[in-house]
Amino acid sequence: MTTPLLGVCYYPEHWPEERWAWDAQKMREAGLSHVRIGEFAWSRLEAEPGHYTFDWLDRAIETLAAQGLKIVLGTPTATPPKWLVDAMPSMLGVDAFGRPRTFGSRRHYCFSHQGYRRECARIVEVLARRYGSHPAVVAWQTDNEYGCHDTVESYSEAARHGFREWLQQKYQSPEALNRAWGNVFWSMEYRSFEEVDLPFLAVTETNPSHRLDFQRYSSDQVVSFNRLQTDIIRRHAPGRDVVHNFMGWFTAFDHFAVSDDLDVATWDSYPIGFLDRDANSPERRARYMRVGDPDAQAFHHDLYRGCGHGRMWVMEQQPGPVNWAPHNPAPAPGAVRLWTWEAFAAGAELVSYFRWRQAPFAQEQMHEALLLPDSTLNEAWYAARDIAAEIADAGITLPQVRADVALVFDYEAAWAGQIQPQAQSYTYLGLMMDSYRALRANGLSVDIVPARAGAADGYSLVVAPGLSAPTDALIASLKPDEQIIVLGPRTGAKTADFAIPATLPPGAAIQSLIDIKVRRIDSLPEHASVPLADGGALSVWREFIVPGAGTQVLARTADGEGWHFTDADGRVHYLGGWADGATLAATLGDLARAAGLDTLTMHRDLRLRDLGEMRFVFNHGPETVDAAAVLEGYETLIGGALLAPCGVVVAQRVI
Amino acid sequence: MTTPLLGVCYYPEHWPEERWAWDAQKMREAGLSHVRIGEFAWSRLEAEPGHYTFDWLDRAIETLAAQGLKIVLGTPTATPPKWLVDAMPSMLGVDAFGRPRTFGSRRHYCFSHQGYRRECARIVEVLARRYGSHPAVVAWQTDNEYGCHDTVESYSEAARHGFREWLQQKYQSPEALNRAWGNVFWSMEYRSFEEVDLPFLAVTETNPSHRLDFQRYSSDQVVSFNRLQTDIIRRHAPGRDVVHNFMGWFTAFDHFAVSDDLDVATWDSYPIGFLDRDANSPERRARYMRVGDPDAQAFHHDLYRGCGHGRMWVMEQQPGPVNWAPHNPAPAPGAVRLWTWEAFAAGAELVSYFRWRQAPFAQEQMHEALLLPDSTLNEAWYAARDIAAEIADAGITLPQVRADVALVFDYEAAWAGQIQPQAQSYTYLGLMMDSYRALRANGLSVDIVPARAGAADGYSLVVAPGLSAPTDALIASLKPDEQIIVLGPRTGAKTADFAIPATLPPGAAIQSLIDIKVRRIDSLPEHASVPLADGGALSVWREFIVPGAGTQVLARTADGEGWHFTDADGRVHYLGGWADGATLAATLGDLARAAGLDTLTMHRDLRLRDLGEMRFVFNHGPETVDAAAVLEGYETLIGGALLAPCGVVVAQRVI
Amino acid sequence: MTTPLLGVCYYPEHWPEERWAWDAQKMREAGLSHVRIGEFAWSRLEAEPGHYTFDWLDRAIETLAAQGLKIVLGTPTATPPKWLVDAMPSMLGVDAFGRPRTFGSRRHYCFSHQGYRRECARIVEVLARRYGSHPAVVAWQTDNEYGCHDTVESYSEAARHGFREWLQQKYQSPEALNRAWGNVFWSMEYRSFEEVDLPFLAVTETNPSHRLDFQRYSSDQVVSFNRLQTDIIRRHAPGRDVVHNFMGWFTAFDHFAVSDDLDVATWDSYPIGFLDRDANSPERRARYMRVGDPDAQAFHHDLYRGCGHGRMWVMEQQPGPVNWAPHNPAPAPGAVRLWTWEAFAAGAELVSYFRWRQAPFAQEQMHEALLLPDSTLNEAWYAARDIAAEIADAGITLPQVRADVALVFDYEAAWAGQIQPQAQSYTYLGLMMDSYRALRANGLSVDIVPARAGAADGYSLVVAPGLSAPTDALIASLKPDEQIIVLGPRTGAKTADFAIPATLPPGAAIQSLIDIKVRRIDSLPEHASVPLADGGALSVWREFIVPGAGTQVLARTADGEGWHFTDADGRVHYLGGWADGATLAATLGDLARAAGLDTLTMHRDLRLRDLGEMRFVFNHGPETVDAAAVLEGYETLIGGALLAPCGVVVAQRVI
Repeated sequence: MTTPLLGVCYYPEHWPEERWAWDAQKMREAGLSHVRIGEFAWSRLEAEPGHYTFDWLDRAIETLAAQGLKIVLGTPTATPPKWLVDAMPSMLGVDAFGRPRTFGSRRHYCFSHQGYRRECARIVEVLARRYGSHPAVVAWQTDNEYGCHDTVESYSEAARHGFREWLQQKYQSPEALNRAWGNVFWSMEYRSFEEVDLPFLAVTETNPSHRLDFQRYSSDQVVSFNRLQTDIIRRHAPGRDVVHNFMGWFTAFDHFAVSDDLDVATWDSYPIGFLDRDANSPERRARYMRVGDPDAQAFHHDLYRGCGHGRMWVMEQQPGPVNWAPHNPAPAPGAVRLWTWEAFAAGAELVSYFRWRQAPFAQEQMHEALLLPDSTLNEAWYAARDIAAEIADAGITLPQVRADVALVFDYEAAWAGQIQPQAQSYTYLGLMMDSYRALRANGLSVDIVPARAGAADGYSLVVAPGLSAPTDALIASLKPDEQIIVLGPRTGAKTADFAIPATLPPGAAIQSLIDIKVRRIDSLPEHASVPLADGGALSVWREFIVPGAGTQVLARTADGEGWHFTDADGRVHYLGGWADGATLAATLGDLARAAGLDTLTMHRDLRLRDLGEMRFVFNHGPETVDAAAVLEGYETLIGGALLAPCGVVVAQRVI
Repeated sequence: MTTPLLGVCYYPEHWPEERWAWDAQKMREAGLSHVRIGEFAWSRLEAEPGHYTFDWLDRAIETLAAQGLKIVLGTPTATPPKWLVDAMPSMLGVDAFGRPRTFGSRRHYCFSHQGYRRECARIVEVLARRYGSHPAVVAWQTDNEYGCHDTVESYSEAARHGFREWLQQKYQSPEALNRAWGNVFWSMEYRSFEEVDLPFLAVTETNPSHRLDFQRYSSDQVVSFNRLQTDIIRRHAPGRDVVHNFMGWFTAFDHFAVSDDLDVATWDSYPIGFLDRDANSPERRARYMRVGDPDAQAFHHDLYRGCGHGRMWVMEQQPGPVNWAPHNPAPAPGAVRLWTWEAFAAGAELVSYFRWRQAPFAQEQMHEALLLPDSTLNEAWYAARDIAAEIADAGITLPQVRADVALVFDYEAAWAGQIQPQAQSYTYLGLMMDSYRALRANGLSVDIVPARAGAADGYSLVVAPGLSAPTDALIASLKPDEQIIVLGPRTGAKTADFAIPATLPPGAAIQSLIDIKVRRIDSLPEHASVPLADGGALSVWREFIVPGAGTQVLARTADGEGWHFTDADGRVHYLGGWADGATLAATLGDLARAAGLDTLTMHRDLRLRDLGEMRFVFNHGPETVDAAAVLEGYETLIGGALLAPCGVVVAQRVI
Repeated sequence: MTTPLLGVCYYPEHWPEERWAWDAQKMREAGLSHVRIGEFAWSRLEAEPGHYTFDWLDRAIETLAAQGLKIVLGTPTATPPKWLVDAMPSMLGVDAFGRPRTFGSRRHYCFSHQGYRRECARIVEVLARRYGSHPAVVAWQTDNEYGCHDTVESYSEAARHGFREWLQQKYQSPEALNRAWGNVFWSMEYRSFEEVDLPFLAVTETNPSHRLDFQRYSSDQVVSFNRLQTDIIRRHAPGRDVVHNFMGWFTAFDHFAVSDDLDVATWDSYPIGFLDRDANSPERRARYMRVGDPDAQAFHHDLYRGCGHGRMWVMEQQPGPVNWAPHNPAPAPGAVRLWTWEAFAAGAELVSYFRWRQAPFAQEQMHEALLLPDSTLNEAWYAARDIAAEIADAGITLPQVRADVALVFDYEAAWAGQIQPQAQSYTYLGLMMDSYRALRANGLSVDIVPARAGAADGYSLVVAPGLSAPTDALIASLKPDEQIIVLGPRTGAKTADFAIPATLPPGAAIQSLIDIKVRRIDSLPEHASVPLADGGALSVWREFIVPGAGTQVLARTADGEGWHFTDADGRVHYLGGWADGATLAATLGDLARAAGLDTLTMHRDLRLRDLGEMRFVFNHGPETVDAAAVLEGYETLIGGALLAPCGVVVAQRVI
């Protein structure tokens, strides 16, 4: 049981030193316990090569610590200063058109560049030595938002060299690589690893295996770049949490793998900015314009809690309008509180607002903060203060518990979907999100787990759509006698080498659970769908499946093909298409009940999250909703059954 | 009279040798007579520079020949191997932004590169020497799909050099070039051919004459690149057909000119992939989602039969969903049979499916085939077998005959339309397709002929819209006393140098047939059209025309301007705008009847093709249609008057 | 009082010399008084480096002068010839992707290139010496359409060098620059000016201050490039008008600053081409397809009259369909006359048609002219002749007078809006245009003035929306006791360094006039708007404002926030959002009447312009409209109260 905590991101270097003490005091007054600092300050820590100026940071830390605030210290490697770029121009990332990216914003480095890695190790080492054992510095953040602005992939000389080495390590011989990729196709065979280039600027699409390996390589660079820093920090900062702040709607590297080197997975939650970015329906965009997608925050909370082996923070929480989306509307009154409680309900130990005071200058000047640029306390400052008060007043503490439903998430499956969508509007993330929505529409709480053997152990219901190439070990670790397992569409569509399985999809391992063969894909234009015999429709993606003996067809399309299959015992299910929301919710609801789970029919705007004996209910819609039906057997600690827009209920099961 | 033949594309190098014999047997069982092989196999034919390994190809040919299969052998020049690219990097094509294209897919060569041409000549010579007189090798295919992935134009040093030479040859002096292009405009004058650059990356549009000449140059490179191969093949493979496989909806080089060096024009027909690509109406896209545009295949059959001087094959026929379109829906049941018979009805000697077995690896793994990757016989295998059987059962043989209607097609006119659309949605291909549709809506069969003097000889009705710059010789060869001639809009709009004719469009030659002057162009936004006095409307393009004495105005716009003109005898017609489908069909129907032709009013989904005494009827729609009215006087050999979706009728005139 | 004049643009070098005399005679017959020549003729004036061939130009000028025509002579610097580019390739502009732009069209030079400037000075000096005192050469045009085809910004070495110098001059020390830009943010600090690069190809957006300074630098280069020429011309051509022809809808440099070195601001008016380009509603695009936006021409007339300190010409007037828009429909009958009179009503001294004869060759061959390519007199020739006649018949002379309403226009505000739109569909020009429309909907005539102290002196109503960073001096020069002042939205949003003002927007200077603070921006998606309490709505942009004591809230949104504020005396107004057209017209109408002005409610298609005692009324719509109500107290000199489509009334107040 832990008490939910609040924090803020702060840039002392942006403000006159005489204002720091006042700032710290106002943070404490708002009930904040944590402050993140330092993550973009390289040019202030080392204004000239090798000349460190840490005195200001010493004083900033002391000033904050004097108010009892705990420091999350960021390494400044996301913003190498100009002198470093000029001394080592080959460190710049190179875009997919072969152009080196320039200085003038951030993240202008190439993950593959060994020289830049040495510079990072140097500055991190100096920082970690200096502050590693400082009592106020309770956690370290590596870098900032790995991959932001499409920076995971770099088409540089350093990447070319690194990729060849990586391939050599993986395949040992060019013949093995040629075989794995199928390079006999179009005479793409290599005689040595030195002949392999990066997959860009080709006449038409390059080999999907080539691209998948390059994505794996690029992801591995992020992992090792991060580990370089965590190793140094752990050496000098024993007992401190080492974290990184991930982003939303971003899959270009394997966040599970990076998280294996972290203590906590943290992420940056901007519900309204994301709504404008993602592919929501016009109706949904209008309805949730000022609160964000009702499932998107929770999805990411659950995903990153899974990455963090149960430990998750929101490192940056949107506090008002931001600056970076095409449109940046103001949040609805109460939205900041709604988002904060949603995070706690999903197990966040800490919610930290971004940022303390709105900067009047530079790129983010239109990004709101807890304070206005003139230091007036802004809406979100009061929101934070009130949340801190209600946590204290209600004496809220939160248990760390597991859900009953596991949704399997796999970054390689996301890459596979991008490399070979086959249907223009197919995205793995969209398919995952629809499955998540369908589970939540049944009032279910969900854990998101990696595609690793054993990760789904103990869950009553395991859902794994779109999982391109599950390992045999993962499939072998599923337990149909104890779990209802739901696969497809597109689960097992490929081998690890990005080929069609020898026994056709979903491949031999899955076929040992449910005897089916996917013989054909029907990829659908946006204007078309395939009606189902019992109402509803498939869109985007539909599979033609040949069931084996003993396989049952539970549902069919109107043209008579099966689309929902199960094994003889009804324990392993395969869905051969992307069903509409209502159909998917009904189907998964049935299967959840078959797995022994209780389901609830949720109002379109309400969302529910159970945490052991605690139940949280949220109203994302513009109207007041009566949630009494989903609070039966619960007593409310915060809020009441009649939820106003942005309303929050925290309740406790009546024993 | 020839018997229609079936074939398949096969890649023995993709499969274990022990499977070849079984493959060959199954091909024979399906009733296939031809197999195309070898066209991407360079890295297997010459894995190391100068070391040829043809033994596997020898064995593959023997294995296929042992089943009586006839071989179409492809030259492998569309996929130069990596060692060749590394030895000669300047051979890479360069894109319109000046970036050399990279290895990793196919067609990465520049047509202008002399060094690469020498390498091509070498490998083709070796192949032709070895297999030229092999009895089973009955035909040769040069390269593969010239121009695919926008590879006709290259902005390389080789192209720059070649273009200057070509201009020097054409114009002899810079002064002549300056005059022809009008380079006095904007001070674009050159003092020597060495000053001329390729028309790319300029501040705003370059001189249209400059671009047209560059397109002519680029097209000429394809012609000479192809001829280099055909010359070698003919030397070593006497009596064999030399062919190339063209694409659909592709006009970047002059296919008539390339075909002049071939025996047969073949093309690759992907009806569903094309539907998703081209600019069809949403309603049309939905209705024909699983069969393709009812006119597009036939149009290309007729076009390529024209290119091939009467001889045409479908070298690659879509057998199921493909992988390269934005969406790739499954064909309707019966669609493969429909497409195959459409090709035969249009005079195809051979329809060859692409490909034998779905490759489980590399770029085209989602492209279906006659066999699934696990060798299961797939839908199209059965379709092929059934078609072969019905040909044999009904004893079908096909005559080679001419249609009564000629539609004049000109690649230079397509380039002119792209270089200077003037109205955003103007495309020459679109205008041609609409004219073709309007003729077919009258039940007419059409020959597509080049814009060459005499090519329209003997046709009762000659239709030539959008023909930018017809030669005087072509116009002089028309015979208004024997033919009804339909020109415009945009026919004769330019001189050969891409200037407005001195006597205004349509230029003096046409004006000697019909006395009109086009004084103004009204280019229309998508939201607007010009209503006609008698119903219907013009869209995209409308001309203001001054008729001379004796010229008759047959139809007017609602605002009183003439749009359909004819000479005093009513034999030469000019249409001053792009009319809607119904108006165009009515107009061309009237003129066909005036030319003495019988017309039929076709149901929207039915299409008809006459081949001498034989009549073919096809149903492209989703409903059963009664075709009795268009089968009066015919007896059916295959199918009956009530056509189910994808239904085919082959009938014989009752004498 | 001046008599309105007509002219034409002519290219004698495009035509056989023997045609010149006939041309000149036909110009005189049409009633034209001015001819612009020479502006693209460099390759004919200096075909070889240093060898001048001016004899043809001598003869052309004599031929024209012999008919009494007055010459506007253009300098040819917009089209440097190929030999110059080859001798000095670094003179080429470089695009935002780092690619040098190529020869083959026009404007391929970089404004920052000192070598090219020397060449320009040389050719201008030679021309000015030769023709400066020629009696027929009454005016000089510098270059042509500065900035056309996005050529103001160049990312060249020359620009990089120049920008660093410019910054050094402006900031004196890197520390000052770092402070001004807020470079502590993201470690963007520089140690020397040599470290500063151009703001392009960065990973994500660069510092807005960086971009604003680069835009200022780029604009300054246009100013100094132009001044280089005007200085030379003035030295050799005393008493002649020096002009430049600006474009419509173009803001990439400061036209006020360039105009300070000119005698007359001229511009090129293409009403239909612009309609297709700009962001008009579909309904508006359809209604005005053949006449252009009813306010856009007038807006630019008023803007450029402001640039020219009261003197304005239309240097190029669209005479028929053009070639460069996505669609190029024919103008409605009467449209050319309508446009011509609109220009005169707005104070144009001269309207010059582009061009004399349609060129049959090169890029603009589809651009109509007064004559067809075959020298047939075209529609616009007759229109010009008739206009000249009606001017003479009615004895029209025009006074130079000021309007009562000033709309403040600022190029830096346009740049600020582009650099940081914050809401995707925000554009400064759109906001200005909506304000202008709203004023015109009240029958008001408007002067457009620069954001300079004193520029709004003497106006009863001053409207300044979106004025990002007004100087304190400008604000101090406003006179609330004499003027009604209307500010916002977004007025005063930034400091000169592109930061949020220390006292929050609209900044201290404006806050001394009206005590408000903008605390939050609500940037709205296209699908959303904020309803107002009294009907109507705000879209795109809405501000949350904290009013000070004494500030009145005149109107509120439906959710209770103020949006229209005024000071205690009701003299200074601030609008906190982008209101719909009807609301804005009603609001500005009220304020105009409060300022003592008479307003009229205009029919949607009618527009009115007063010039002292003269009143002009125009009908832009497709139907006849009775304008009697707005002509009360006037007697008509040309036209009558019942205005047919494209109808024009010139009336005189009855004393």
